[in-house]
Amino acid sequence: MSDDVNGPDARTRLLDAAVRAFAARGFHGTTTRDIAAAAGMSPAALYVHHRSKEELLHQISLAGHQRALELCEAAVAGAQSPRDQLVALVRDFVRHHALNHTVGRIVNYELAGLTAEHRAEIEKMRRRMDAIVRDLVRRGVEAGVFHTPEPAITGAAVLSLGIDVSRWFDSQGGWSPDQVAEHYCELVLRMVGANGSSAS
Amino acid sequence: MSDDVNGPDARTRLLDAAVRAFAARGFHGTTTRDIAAAAGMSPAALYVHHRSKEELLHQISLAGHQRALELCEAAVAGAQSPRDQLVALVRDFVRHHALNHTVGRIVNYELAGLTAEHRAEIEKMRRRMDAIVRDLVRRGVEAGVFHTPEPAITGAAVLSLGIDVSRWFDSQGGWSPDQVAEHYCELVLRMVGANGSSAS
Repeated sequence: MSDDVNGPDARTRLLDAAVRAFAARGFHGTTTRDIAAAAGMSPAALYVHHRSKEELLHQISLAGHQRALELCEAAVAGAQSPRDQLVALVRDFVRHHALNHTVGRIVNYELAGLTAEHRAEIEKMRRRMDAIVRDLVRRGVEAGVFHTPEPAITGAAVLSLGIDVSRWFDSQGGWSPDQVAEHYCELVLRMVGANGSSAS
Repeated sequence: MSDDVNGPDARTRLLDAAVRAFAARGFHGTTTRDIAAAAGMSPAALYVHHRSKEELLHQISLAGHQRALELCEAAVAGAQSPRDQLVALVRDFVRHHALNHTVGRIVNYELAGLTAEHRAEIEKMRRRMDAIVRDLVRRGVEAGVFHTPEPAITGAAVLSLGIDVSRWFDSQGGWSPDQVAEHYCELVLRMVGANGSSAS
């Protein structure tokens, strides 16, 4: 056990320990005692920082969603054409989910562990991300540079591909985050019909 | 509590109860007592059928993977051209994951709850599915009807899109399983470059 229970370092250690514990045993299978032990603290020391393990899940989930949402917003703000915006978004979103796949799994698969209030806050951020990608696909279609009869389902599929990278990334392929991100950009440009082609 | 603890009905009730419990609280957050109660049985009655909750997870996981693997094999066996095989595979795989999304989440996100032996058995089935889809994409490329520089990553992305349907299907869009399946066939034909086009 460490005596350093008040500094920012203790806070970081607790969040890291919570990520590892939730990833290994799920939110419901983890106790505050597990998290405190993994952080080298007593359960009492944990309560200095967090009232409950749900508060830890909320902080992890909030930080993860804020980062993902920022990536999407920055990609749209940082380029002019729908095509360049989409490439930047997919490249950064896929890299992020490959590099942070452990946190990504908690963020995407443990929503049921949040309180109703926290869940509503997170769902709002998820809907914002959905809207950014759908609007981007729709703008491309309206501008005549993308061609898909279903911009909404296509947008959902683009985000879905990126999110699922956090599930499979460490288990197969042996590809680097950059390799997957680069090839996924090509796949997504095809999905939205970025050169006016249709496969059917 | 029901006295019918020996029939096939009791077995089905226990599996259904386990699916609901694992879906709600995760494998590690569920006790055998929870499952027995949800099935209207005593914990002792549960042990007539299953030695542990891991055995229930294994049965759910095995049945789910067998069904998904059969879908993939049947799609390839039931058509001649790579294009028709891929369309059948994606349509059936996506419909299956939309219709059975609750079981799909357990099957895909609770692998860590299995014993090493059971996990190895399931991973073997997953590798078989990966191989079917990659080989299908590769055969299409060799036959000159698909065009993708990375058949392996493209194959992984096709399966990934289908698997992730079980995560998002009940939470957004309001689309029917058939609508999603039909549009996903179009997206996947584009991903593999089924008419020789490239978006880049």
